[in-house]
Amino acid sequence: MARIVMKFGGTSMAGIERIRHVASLVKREADRGNQVAVVVSAMAGETDRLVQLCREAAALYDPREYDVVVASGEQVTAGLLAITLQGMGTNARSYMGWQLPIRASGHTAGLIDHIDADVLERVFEQGGIAVIPGFQGVTEAGDLATLGRGGSDTSAVALAVAAKADRCDIYTDVEGVFTTDPRIVPRARKLEAITYEEMLELASVGAKVLQTRSVGLAMRYNMPLQVLSSFEDKPGTLIVSDTQIEEFNMERQLITGIAHDKNEALVTLTGLPDKPGTVAAIFSPLADANINVDMIIQIAPRAGEESELTFTVPKASLDHAVAELEKVKETVGFGTISTETDVVKVSAVGIGMRSNAGIAAQMFRTLAERGINIRAISTSEIKVSVLIPEDYTELAVRVLHSAFGLDGAVESGAAA
Amino acid sequence: MARIVMKFGGTSMAGIERIRHVASLVKREADRGNQVAVVVSAMAGETDRLVQLCREAAALYDPREYDVVVASGEQVTAGLLAITLQGMGTNARSYMGWQLPIRASGHTAGLIDHIDADVLERVFEQGGIAVIPGFQGVTEAGDLATLGRGGSDTSAVALAVAAKADRCDIYTDVEGVFTTDPRIVPRARKLEAITYEEMLELASVGAKVLQTRSVGLAMRYNMPLQVLSSFEDKPGTLIVSDTQIEEFNMERQLITGIAHDKNEALVTLTGLPDKPGTVAAIFSPLADANINVDMIIQIAPRAGEESELTFTVPKASLDHAVAELEKVKETVGFGTISTETDVVKVSAVGIGMRSNAGIAAQMFRTLAERGINIRAISTSEIKVSVLIPEDYTELAVRVLHSAFGLDGAVESGAAA
Repeated sequence: MARIVMKFGGTSMAGIERIRHVASLVKREADRGNQVAVVVSAMAGETDRLVQLCREAAALYDPREYDVVVASGEQVTAGLLAITLQGMGTNARSYMGWQLPIRASGHTAGLIDHIDADVLERVFEQGGIAVIPGFQGVTEAGDLATLGRGGSDTSAVALAVAAKADRCDIYTDVEGVFTTDPRIVPRARKLEAITYEEMLELASVGAKVLQTRSVGLAMRYNMPLQVLSSFEDKPGTLIVSDTQIEEFNMERQLITGIAHDKNEALVTLTGLPDKPGTVAAIFSPLADANINVDMIIQIAPRAGEESELTFTVPKASLDHAVAELEKVKETVGFGTISTETDVVKVSAVGIGMRSNAGIAAQMFRTLAERGINIRAISTSEIKVSVLIPEDYTELAVRVLHSAFGLDGAVESGAAA
Repeated sequence: MARIVMKFGGTSMAGIERIRHVASLVKREADRGNQVAVVVSAMAGETDRLVQLCREAAALYDPREYDVVVASGEQVTAGLLAITLQGMGTNARSYMGWQLPIRASGHTAGLIDHIDADVLERVFEQGGIAVIPGFQGVTEAGDLATLGRGGSDTSAVALAVAAKADRCDIYTDVEGVFTTDPRIVPRARKLEAITYEEMLELASVGAKVLQTRSVGLAMRYNMPLQVLSSFEDKPGTLIVSDTQIEEFNMERQLITGIAHDKNEALVTLTGLPDKPGTVAAIFSPLADANINVDMIIQIAPRAGEESELTFTVPKASLDHAVAELEKVKETVGFGTISTETDVVKVSAVGIGMRSNAGIAAQMFRTLAERGINIRAISTSEIKVSVLIPEDYTELAVRVLHSAFGLDGAVESGAAA
């Protein structure tokens, strides 16, 4: 017997037919003798509809009241799933975030402070199934709160941690985590298992399967996650710790996956004076404005000459960054600010990389062979990222996927 | 300064534009220096949509989970109205039924047991506006509960009573209470004031402006109600006690209004044995089956002969009633059961009637002059009802409206 938290996303809950299918998956898990709690998202599109209503009601809406409105989407699906599960003869009941309670730190993008698992324990003891709306909690003041978009994944992981579950299964509209985007590389393979760190790198650079926060939370508490499809009856991808992944008797590649991210923009400053403190004087105002600087290249100047500085910021922050830079242009004394947005960051991610510095070299060589110009580079312990012209995205992903031995058989029906 | 509870129905809350108009009405009341609490229904059609989802989820849905689903409609409109009111510069906040709390006796058609007014008092002290979802409460066990369809009227009245409000204003899509259905009689007049008892009789016989329960509750606690339109800026109809109505310096008619109700069916039993206990043996099983018998006529038999018994039941209970009667046919020993559904009950209602037995006579005479055959009669202290063939509905309503001096000038735009 295992204790499992199952989480279903918006496309899995979109309408009574889909909910009926979800109920059958939940019932199957319970029929195996497992203790089951279910976390649900709102029907696909419903949260957008509710957010839009709030925006129409007032340009600057109150976070507290926004939460009252948007939390209703998950309330509806939780009740409907409980009804459907009861109709199949199970002892299911819904529990709102304020009933457990799930304590949230604040409104609209609250963090989960604490979950009381007493109600869940009672439900499990009585052989029941608890259905819990994701994305919502209750503040210390007793008001409805939401956890920010995609927060249902975090709800599920936090609930699994609080209930000391053996596993948290995240059902979604993809089959699992792939070695890269199957829309670009048809030979992309679904991974049997991946570490939390790898998943965080893949997620943060574009493989939007799970909310990043939820992976971080699972890592902190060592809660095994599984990503799988509610549409197809196939095993998904397990997300576990470095030590747990050793149990998988598979041929571990040095590289686990290739990701790409089009959300970065390049900023180049020319004519920088060669004196101490120049770079600090440029990055400090950006940091103060909460603008995240990722890749940085400084063309090393000859003694006494002016130099160039190039770095990336999120595309959404580009206008803001340029405005901040204009303010310090005079005092710092640099020449021009130029920007480029037609760039893409391509990353090779793999826990095996830690002991292999040759990965970066192979990556540069592979791209150079295709005449792909690398504008910037950044590395972490388990990732090498390069910034290249956006036009080369698919080519770069494809040749790197192949070069690192990730190509599998062409799988029919590989989901995006 | 007055303390006022304002209630807005589904058509008044149907979409952001309508909600903005509602907010302007609320703000106007607050700007007059009044303390205001607002009770809102779900957007028109939303509760039906949610009920339908529950029905699709399972034929026999759990009342507890049904309440979780359908209570969400009012949650959304309460949050949206609070946002809109804040956007207009008022200090508005929503409070869910479980937050006040509004204690309900049970699920799907719960009664309000108790409302804690402490939160409201605090809001009023701070010059705030409280927005409360109608139709919902919380059970003793801490679960979401709803009050049955139309329950928002009852929420509003109960809240007005708990908060010791001076008045409860029910905004709806009609201008007020009319002397009869203006679709039948264009010369129907809007009443300036009416007593609770008259309103109850008019509501129960077809003038569906307010939920009957809410009028009964207002009467018990002597809470003045006002029915008025959220679409037109006109005074509505006040609903008050017998003593309060004396304050209105208007020419009180003996009859306040003419109502009609097509929901009754006629049952006739022939060949009843003339022995003691026969009628009791017929009505007992109907009472046991919770079938309401309204009008009763027994053709008085000559000694030793068989007689006929005719009575009305709600059309919705007719099949059930016939089935129950078939069961006792043998033991009671009557001949045939026949039914008629093409009948209508037309009622003259008026508190002035209490001291005037001539009303019934005038009613019969007026209908007889038009050749309208009366099948059954029932009377109460403030009402005389007759059952006539359905084809004569409009004619009967029109001639009685005229005969009792209720005709006004033809009012353009009189709402239904």
